[in-house]
Amino acid sequence: MKDYIKVDEWKIIEEGFDPHYNKISESIFSLGNGRMGQRANFEEAYSGDTLQGNYVAGVYYPDKTRVGWWKNGYPEYFAKVLNAANWIGIDITIEGEQLDLAQCTTQQFSRELNMKEGYLKRTFTATTKNGKQVAVESTRFCSMADDETGAIRYALTPLNFSGEVTITPYIDGDVKNKDANYDEKFWDEVKKGTSTNGAFVQLRTKKTGFEVATGMLVSILQNNQPIDAGFKPVEKEKYVALQTTLQVKANEPVTIYKFAANLSSQNHPADQLEEVLNDTLQRIAAKGFDTMLAEQAAAWAEKWKHNDIIIEGDASAQQGIRFNIFQLNQTYTGEDDRLNIGPKGFTGEKYGGSTYWDTEAYCVPFYLATADQKVTRNLLLYRYKQLGKAIENAASLGFNNGAALYPMVTMDGTECHNEWEITFEEIHRNGAIAYAIFNYVRYTADDAYLADYGLEVLIAISRFWSQRVNWSDDKQQYVMLGVTGPNEYENNINNNWYTSKLAVWCMKYTLEVVKQVKANEPDKYNALATKINFSIDSETAKWSNIVEQMYYPYSEKLGVFLQQDGYLDKEQILVKDLPAADRPINQKWSWDRILRSCYIKQADVLQGIYFFEDEYDLETIRRNFDFYEPRTVHESSLSPCVHAILAAKLGDEARAYEFYLRTSRLDLDDYNNDTEDGCHTTSMAGTWMSVVEGFGGMRVKDGKLSFQPFLPAKWNSFSFHVGFRGALLNIKVSKEGVQITNHSEAEIVVIVHGKEQLVKANADVILEA
Amino acid sequence: MKDYIKVDEWKIIEEGFDPHYNKISESIFSLGNGRMGQRANFEEAYSGDTLQGNYVAGVYYPDKTRVGWWKNGYPEYFAKVLNAANWIGIDITIEGEQLDLAQCTTQQFSRELNMKEGYLKRTFTATTKNGKQVAVESTRFCSMADDETGAIRYALTPLNFSGEVTITPYIDGDVKNKDANYDEKFWDEVKKGTSTNGAFVQLRTKKTGFEVATGMLVSILQNNQPIDAGFKPVEKEKYVALQTTLQVKANEPVTIYKFAANLSSQNHPADQLEEVLNDTLQRIAAKGFDTMLAEQAAAWAEKWKHNDIIIEGDASAQQGIRFNIFQLNQTYTGEDDRLNIGPKGFTGEKYGGSTYWDTEAYCVPFYLATADQKVTRNLLLYRYKQLGKAIENAASLGFNNGAALYPMVTMDGTECHNEWEITFEEIHRNGAIAYAIFNYVRYTADDAYLADYGLEVLIAISRFWSQRVNWSDDKQQYVMLGVTGPNEYENNINNNWYTSKLAVWCMKYTLEVVKQVKANEPDKYNALATKINFSIDSETAKWSNIVEQMYYPYSEKLGVFLQQDGYLDKEQILVKDLPAADRPINQKWSWDRILRSCYIKQADVLQGIYFFEDEYDLETIRRNFDFYEPRTVHESSLSPCVHAILAAKLGDEARAYEFYLRTSRLDLDDYNNDTEDGCHTTSMAGTWMSVVEGFGGMRVKDGKLSFQPFLPAKWNSFSFHVGFRGALLNIKVSKEGVQITNHSEAEIVVIVHGKEQLVKANADVILEA
Repeated sequence: MKDYIKVDEWKIIEEGFDPHYNKISESIFSLGNGRMGQRANFEEAYSGDTLQGNYVAGVYYPDKTRVGWWKNGYPEYFAKVLNAANWIGIDITIEGEQLDLAQCTTQQFSRELNMKEGYLKRTFTATTKNGKQVAVESTRFCSMADDETGAIRYALTPLNFSGEVTITPYIDGDVKNKDANYDEKFWDEVKKGTSTNGAFVQLRTKKTGFEVATGMLVSILQNNQPIDAGFKPVEKEKYVALQTTLQVKANEPVTIYKFAANLSSQNHPADQLEEVLNDTLQRIAAKGFDTMLAEQAAAWAEKWKHNDIIIEGDASAQQGIRFNIFQLNQTYTGEDDRLNIGPKGFTGEKYGGSTYWDTEAYCVPFYLATADQKVTRNLLLYRYKQLGKAIENAASLGFNNGAALYPMVTMDGTECHNEWEITFEEIHRNGAIAYAIFNYVRYTADDAYLADYGLEVLIAISRFWSQRVNWSDDKQQYVMLGVTGPNEYENNINNNWYTSKLAVWCMKYTLEVVKQVKANEPDKYNALATKINFSIDSETAKWSNIVEQMYYPYSEKLGVFLQQDGYLDKEQILVKDLPAADRPINQKWSWDRILRSCYIKQADVLQGIYFFEDEYDLETIRRNFDFYEPRTVHESSLSPCVHAILAAKLGDEARAYEFYLRTSRLDLDDYNNDTEDGCHTTSMAGTWMSVVEGFGGMRVKDGKLSFQPFLPAKWNSFSFHVGFRGALLNIKVSKEGVQITNHSEAEIVVIVHGKEQLVKANADVILEA
Repeated sequence: MKDYIKVDEWKIIEEGFDPHYNKISESIFSLGNGRMGQRANFEEAYSGDTLQGNYVAGVYYPDKTRVGWWKNGYPEYFAKVLNAANWIGIDITIEGEQLDLAQCTTQQFSRELNMKEGYLKRTFTATTKNGKQVAVESTRFCSMADDETGAIRYALTPLNFSGEVTITPYIDGDVKNKDANYDEKFWDEVKKGTSTNGAFVQLRTKKTGFEVATGMLVSILQNNQPIDAGFKPVEKEKYVALQTTLQVKANEPVTIYKFAANLSSQNHPADQLEEVLNDTLQRIAAKGFDTMLAEQAAAWAEKWKHNDIIIEGDASAQQGIRFNIFQLNQTYTGEDDRLNIGPKGFTGEKYGGSTYWDTEAYCVPFYLATADQKVTRNLLLYRYKQLGKAIENAASLGFNNGAALYPMVTMDGTECHNEWEITFEEIHRNGAIAYAIFNYVRYTADDAYLADYGLEVLIAISRFWSQRVNWSDDKQQYVMLGVTGPNEYENNINNNWYTSKLAVWCMKYTLEVVKQVKANEPDKYNALATKINFSIDSETAKWSNIVEQMYYPYSEKLGVFLQQDGYLDKEQILVKDLPAADRPINQKWSWDRILRSCYIKQADVLQGIYFFEDEYDLETIRRNFDFYEPRTVHESSLSPCVHAILAAKLGDEARAYEFYLRTSRLDLDDYNNDTEDGCHTTSMAGTWMSVVEGFGGMRVKDGKLSFQPFLPAKWNSFSFHVGFRGALLNIKVSKEGVQITNHSEAEIVVIVHGKEQLVKANADVILEA
């Protein structure tokens, strides 16, 4: 845990340069616009500890799998987020000496991420070894308004000298992924070029053949007057630069404007990339930096209108929640159904692949409430389009008849992960994908989605479950053997309650949707049934049979669902009784000891109770919560949010707040000591859930939004935005009560504390405390 | 399955050259003498598919661990058998063209492993692309009589030409392990040198710093007359050679004698290696090739006297069993308690480390019966000396108070393996090590071993088990969670019957031995108790408590021990009902499907019944055998022997023979399609067990050897040698009956079919059928 980030409601601020924090800050201050992104590396050279990272959404490389011991069924490749061409670089040489903060003394340094307007600003004053002091101010952003572009303004002022400064803005595509399995570079050069004030490289990924053209246009002002820079081109492999040496005068700034664009063959024909790149660069340079920055601020203002959570009375919490919302918006905008939400967004390359079940379980609720419904729909379509590969994946593991197993980690639908207990056994992910369909339809009432896409996915998933269970002669029930639940501190267990529960729910829900689509959309139903060779009678009979005769581990004595068979054989020492020196157990204990222990990494039974809350009375929820929470170590950032929501549900406001705190500033405070690898992007959606579903108590019930809000004791108020079926609501919870404001033309009935409230168009309702 | 090896009772013969079989033959025709060994590579260059392999016992390199996903507790390194300097190489160039069977047409080719006398002979007639035809005969061996040396006679006769032949005998230390994790070479050069007729290189392993000096002395005869070869030295990195070009005449042989020695700093001071090497080479060259070969034959004759199994009426079976015995003797001679028995011996580098539980469970019975008891004692001392590292290993996994967990795979006592479900969970290996102590003492009556060494190991192992189990409040019994049994087709299971049974047996046996040593050797006992801080009262009380209250899974309904909790929840389809296309399942099924299935890789419950046979009545054994055997796929070569022995015990002679057949020619027939990686050396001991403990029904009961022999229907007779407490017996089982011959001065009482028989010194007893 670190606390070097300054508290500010709208900004993330680092003051003073500590190289030890540099990689953490590079993650935290990352920029992105859903289409591309980058870590907060310096423009000028930096020879200290750094993780250079530039990423282009959807561009990946299937890195050859690396394992110690191969297991049948492992995928050949792990498709990785690609470290792409660096377009921010501007090398500076001062009187022959390279400007490099690792080699300078720094008199002043600040990094500032302006979340309101979406840009990164950095200032420093530093003195080189030769005693030359300069002041630098750089401002840069990835444009939200024009998402293939970005821009930098880099102003350097000599403070104690006049002399020669060499300026070399460049594009460098000769990059390597830090986590490349075989130390390979993933890009080949297609072409490159330079002009008097511009340069570009076009690169092609090995194997996958994605092409990305990255280019720049550069202009320089000296003492605020445009000059003819007289650039000389520099070309190396996968690298282009423009170089000029200027005579600079003390206290007269040199300002470099670097306009950049990143174009991918996913969005343009590869043979037109150079031309489109050229047009794009001309267009944005003509627009100018200040105009682009103004557009950026406007684009973010529009985001915040729908997304912002305002917390009064706690600036640190305010900063934390805004940071989470900011990063989620930087990562995924929902424009493109080929994209998804990587666990590190554009802030690092760890975990490689882009899509985990995090998307369906944790991110969908955020996007449902804060973005147009097409955003979530695109996330569902992403999986729909990958159904064929999920069926292939299941077939490769021995399943048949169109059964689908969605991958644990993927880019394009093929499984990437290679850890048998996860890849083959953490199959509950299939259920989360079905649940997201249910959740989307419940929220939006977009029943058409079911007939057009949803049912096909649901049937394939139910086919999988019906083959994955087996009849136990011994128990005279269906069992599900050899699974890993959300709690990855248990592997290859039998009858994980969560997985079995979710599997049965999938089959039940599919049975309902089959009936509904068949009745309401018989043509679509028939076309689908033919397409996928659906034998309604025998298949639904089999599912019903499993639904009725599934075995779930349960303790009569304790009245709790058992996480798995044999859970009560474990030594039951509560987390509070563990010596502090033993925690976190994932750093202190050997893996087998973790597996044998009763400790739970993240909500598992409780995740199921969260999903299917309406099936359980409060006492059942309380018994399970009271049993599992004291055994949960929350060593996944996805755990506390579910506990916060359930604690709130149980009326335990203090603990709900405690759980919320565990993730609200996870990255800002480097809570897990791993932010340097990138931010925990998907768990940020969980923090949002803690506030909205926890403190706000928001649910959808019978087609209506329902709230059960309470105000955390330390806050004066909090408010959040929710869009629901055409209405745009702001819910403010304060000491005075609850105020619901409808910013739309659609009137809406909501339920607050169990009572229906009509909120008219462009009006509000105030419920006094 | 292949059957290109010709049947011969004393030889392994390959006729005709098929490059597809070359790597298989390189394994099968391997040579070794316990100190060093090599694959049957060609002396001359070969550009076809080959796995070059030369190995020096006990010399290893800790290769940096390679995994996909790191788990806490994994070792940093995997210590590997090292591919060492190649000393067999003799490059031949004929009129400027390299002799290389991959580039020639071959008119005749044979490879012959003479098991009786311990040498490899190869002959061929081949024609180069330029039309030059030569006949070659090479004979080589690793000397059993002088185990740091070897020799080659390589005779080349031009058949259709006279002309220039260049001969380049060399030592090449610039070799790489095929399975190097990071493509690294493991040797550095220390020094090298050449003389008029000799050359050497001295190499040092990286990290471990072992030094090995490998040298040669070479002489040449032309038309059977010694000549002055006029060698020119050739030196490259880690490589030395002597080169000469001779004018050869048609039909006049050129004969090259290459005397070689391999000396390791384990056995000589590193700074004296060159000198000792020189002396050694001079000594063997003076002795001459024929004398060395005669010594080799004599050394093998002595081995066969104690080892041979003679099968009459089945030459193929005869060849198979002799091959197994031959390879076991080539791998381990028992002279050196720092050495152990690698799973591939000197025939390949797969599986890297040298020591697995195979040694204790399968090899010990072979060496106990066929070699001096010091051989087995040395195998036990190997583990005794590594006790400290086993205690460290357990401590690194969270155990304390001197608990020991022996490694799954090791060279020097440190764990090498990195597969969590094996490394951390296949802990039954600890029990096999205790069982080997018991087995050794039962066989030899060397009680002193217990006081001097055995008890210390037993206490450390019992300490481990007592911490590894835990009390289940739910069951009100002790349980053992998260283990992998010998059946590796189940991972991370709870209450594996075999492991729990063995653990409890270890504690019981330790309790007995504590009592015995305390009573009989109080001084040694007290010294040990002080040394290891043994709290006899509390520790033995704890063990007794576990012994009494351990939980074992059992099916009342079926009357069988259950392999693990939940085994009966699996779908019970017998192996015979599996489609042939699905087998072997380890090649056809994904890993999760294998894990979920009821199929057993190798004897597990039955392994326990084999170990503790006397505890069970025949009906119990039969019920368990009849339940598990039909569920066992025998995809480990260590499985059939246990089944053969139990089938024999149950009187099912036909099936006992069937199980025997599965491994008796495993490598000769390349049964599993993997002999090219090396031979299955440790499972060869299992085949020996099938004959002696299966068909011979040999056991030790109350300090006496007992036999329950039967003759497989296809055989006329079989006989085997057994040494027991000073007596040297030959047991011959034929249609006429059983003949027991005592080749020693010690008279002995043995039990045959339940009746005691006195066998006087140098006499025999004949029991008619």
